Amino acid sequence: MTMISKAACIGGGVIGGGWIARFLLAGIDVDVYDPHPEATRIVGEVLANAEKAYAMLTGAPLPPRGKLAFRETLEQAVAGADWIQESVPERLDLKRKVLTQIDAAAGPDALIGSSTSGLLPTDLQRDMRYPERLFVAHPYNPVYLLPLVEIVGGEKTSTETIQAAMERLPPIGMKGVHIAKEIEAFVGDRLLEALWREALWLIKDDICTVETLDDVIRYSFGLRWAQMGLFQTYRIAGGEAGMRHFLAQFGPALQWNWTKLMDVVDLDDALVEKIGQQSDEQADGLSIRELERIRDENLVGILQTLKGSHDGKGWGAGKLLKEFEQGLWAAAGGGKKLWDAGQPLRLIETKVSPAWVDYNGHMTEHRYLQVFGDTSDALLRLIGVDFAYVERGHSYYTVETHIRHLAEAKLGRAIHSTCQVLSADEKRLRVFHTIYDTATGEAIATGEHMLLHVDAKAGKAAPAPEEVLSKIRPIAEAHEKLPVPEGAGRHVGQKR
Amino acid sequence: MTMISKAACIGGGVIGGGWIARFLLAGIDVDVYDPHPEATRIVGEVLANAEKAYAMLTGAPLPPRGKLAFRETLEQAVAGADWIQESVPERLDLKRKVLTQIDAAAGPDALIGSSTSGLLPTDLQRDMRYPERLFVAHPYNPVYLLPLVEIVGGEKTSTETIQAAMERLPPIGMKGVHIAKEIEAFVGDRLLEALWREALWLIKDDICTVETLDDVIRYSFGLRWAQMGLFQTYRIAGGEAGMRHFLAQFGPALQWNWTKLMDVVDLDDALVEKIGQQSDEQADGLSIRELERIRDENLVGILQTLKGSHDGKGWGAGKLLKEFEQGLWAAAGGGKKLWDAGQPLRLIETKVSPAWVDYNGHMTEHRYLQVFGDTSDALLRLIGVDFAYVERGHSYYTVETHIRHLAEAKLGRAIHSTCQVLSADEKRLRVFHTIYDTATGEAIATGEHMLLHVDAKAGKAAPAPEEVLSKIRPIAEAHEKLPVPEGAGRHVGQKR
Repeated sequence: MTMISKAACIGGGVIGGGWIARFLLAGIDVDVYDPHPEATRIVGEVLANAEKAYAMLTGAPLPPRGKLAFRETLEQAVAGADWIQESVPERLDLKRKVLTQIDAAAGPDALIGSSTSGLLPTDLQRDMRYPERLFVAHPYNPVYLLPLVEIVGGEKTSTETIQAAMERLPPIGMKGVHIAKEIEAFVGDRLLEALWREALWLIKDDICTVETLDDVIRYSFGLRWAQMGLFQTYRIAGGEAGMRHFLAQFGPALQWNWTKLMDVVDLDDALVEKIGQQSDEQADGLSIRELERIRDENLVGILQTLKGSHDGKGWGAGKLLKEFEQGLWAAAGGGKKLWDAGQPLRLIETKVSPAWVDYNGHMTEHRYLQVFGDTSDALLRLIGVDFAYVERGHSYYTVETHIRHLAEAKLGRAIHSTCQVLSADEKRLRVFHTIYDTATGEAIATGEHMLLHVDAKAGKAAPAPEEVLSKIRPIAEAHEKLPVPEGAGRHVGQKR
Repeated sequence: MTMISKAACIGGGVIGGGWIARFLLAGIDVDVYDPHPEATRIVGEVLANAEKAYAMLTGAPLPPRGKLAFRETLEQAVAGADWIQESVPERLDLKRKVLTQIDAAAGPDALIGSSTSGLLPTDLQRDMRYPERLFVAHPYNPVYLLPLVEIVGGEKTSTETIQAAMERLPPIGMKGVHIAKEIEAFVGDRLLEALWREALWLIKDDICTVETLDDVIRYSFGLRWAQMGLFQTYRIAGGEAGMRHFLAQFGPALQWNWTKLMDVVDLDDALVEKIGQQSDEQADGLSIRELERIRDENLVGILQTLKGSHDGKGWGAGKLLKEFEQGLWAAAGGGKKLWDAGQPLRLIETKVSPAWVDYNGHMTEHRYLQVFGDTSDALLRLIGVDFAYVERGHSYYTVETHIRHLAEAKLGRAIHSTCQVLSADEKRLRVFHTIYDTATGEAIATGEHMLLHVDAKAGKAAPAPEEVLSKIRPIAEAHEKLPVPEGAGRHVGQKR
């Protein structure tokens, strides 16, 4: 895996803005060229949504955000960039012109990706001097949450370019899939276009409304496809009889009149108006902004669910998220992180996600313990108890916890946690965490925890090795000099 | 909403088995007729999967499972049933014969649904004496988790039948959508068939493999469609410019060569073998059983995520789940539940879900508090502090918690919780919960909690009303006679 060092984005609409957000949040500087008068506003809005979504998506330490600069000319934007992403409107003549201009201004080793959703890379690269570094990198909206990028090469694209492009996507949280042969609309939009054309017929012929059609999708195969695709779903449906046997059953249906796609629908004014009206009714008063927020919150929750899937190994887009986070933790350097001896450690920064609140908009009880648990995990990484350490068979387990609720953590509030080590010996580690409202500085909850160092295989307490103790000792010694926090040592119901 | 009182299932394969599970788990007795020698085994397997899934899906109190009986004849099975579901193989002559036989044996008011995925209800009802009560009720696999049922009437189906069918689905956790006009394959399978035919071309033409195609779906639009469908997604993508403007942009693409669907793919032996081989590679050694388990766990997690969406109001399939659970709680009768004064209350029964464990297969720290929180909620419902009570502006908030971890809760283990009331006065309620491994009886964790009765609007403690106190008092008095549980009143790190 290789990290992009500087990115340039030519075109900053909704798609370009999504790419910009992916780069910036991965710590990569981005230069943008877009002559559109509203480009700054649009990119700003996409970036704000992306930051909100990332704050909910992951508790892993994001690197410092990359620097964003809008440039006066295309040439200024591409200078020094090693990944240049073109996201201008979908017209071959325009894209060809812009790509040729990028080609002339960019360093010869720069990778040039096009966001086109349908044009052939061979057509796009026709007039380029170094056509071998041009490829299609087709993302999906919202680009900052949906990980897919279809990577498609043209006749002149080099194998090295494809490989380099594929390698640079996981560090920005994205999944490249290499499409073996170029065809118009590639794979994703081919599938979408087929389903879309059929959907238009169903609306035009009054078989159902757009709301019913959407419900048919999201109460059935949409739930399947968030985690397994078409073929794997059918593999399971086929059961023990096997995929080949199952496919044989499909044969007859292909001859049946189960689609109108032998004919093209006419998307005339009447059909546009019909869909428009039905879509207004379906929205039921929710604005685009509200729908966008609900969509993003749902996507975040689904991605987090898939991260915990397959016995914690992660599945599909959730596995990708897990690996992305592991990269972030590794990059943050675990035990190399600096700390200030004069105060408790500041460890977790997050936001109260919609998945965490009850219908009152208050954070649910057990989510407090989740933040306290994450705080303990962050402390453990700081003293060298990281993924690798745990995999070698030792860990710290929490054996006892005391929580006080002092105020409410409300939906969307930025919160952070601190940790004061109360005592540490060979086996035991007693810590006191506090969750604060970051804006007001108010303490929202405290958590006191006793952790035991264990031999996980033997299933019993064991002394921590010197490599760990040598890291916890200076923190414990520094924290001993701090005042004992109010509430430490309390039992439930104790008088103040 | 009306509850089915007795169901009959004619045909007990994977789809019939799914219906059987839906009915039984909603507390409805089911009589089954299926002459297939393996019917009992297949239904048993589907039912086992469904029970596992439900145990993870919801903590709401399921009613006692309905009684399952396999009958010797179709006539015996349908006797006394008010919903009869036909799920025999997809051949018009066979279905017509079976439906006519059901029609002759069933009471005249019974609803008769067919699971057909493509045949027209008008064709199915042709020979029936009471054709007005025949409709298509087309579900999606796995039927016990995907909520969608397409309800389609034929020429002779009555409006009352459609309405009665739609009303009977939410109490079994399903979502009926009424398809306005009958066409072959209805709506869902039309959309699927269009996408499927295009997918077959993409594989046949070597544009990509089945694994790549599945990845394209599940890393992009599959994530969208679990929560919003096609049109609402495009509404958002269109942004402020509006749906009509956005649609106008689609016009040209309809004329482009973006699909091969003007032609039908030949699913010949070579293509079947190619897909079979690629599917084997994609499965990467996972058996159908393992894939099934992963699929179900993912679906459970996605449904739970959507239940918390839209500021806790629920969204799409998650909103349906939320309403289903509210129905279960209401049916369980809240404060009317009996309790035994001689021991702690037994309140929560659940299983350690895969979404709850870390990669060691141990339940994650904060999930213990989730079970304790659910236990407190169950106690509160028992004393009349239910949804309606909270909506009127008062509630109990947890202010302090003490947890001890005594053993590990492992993946898939059945666990239950008990509650002993330690003390109760006008405002305060101090409780002691224990989580047990249900099979071994071993105590896994204890939680001591102080709850305060609050006026939620004023945001401060307030005395509970007599209607609540009168219910908590007898429990508190009975529990005072029990021994004080070991560990009550402990602070973190206290010597034993």
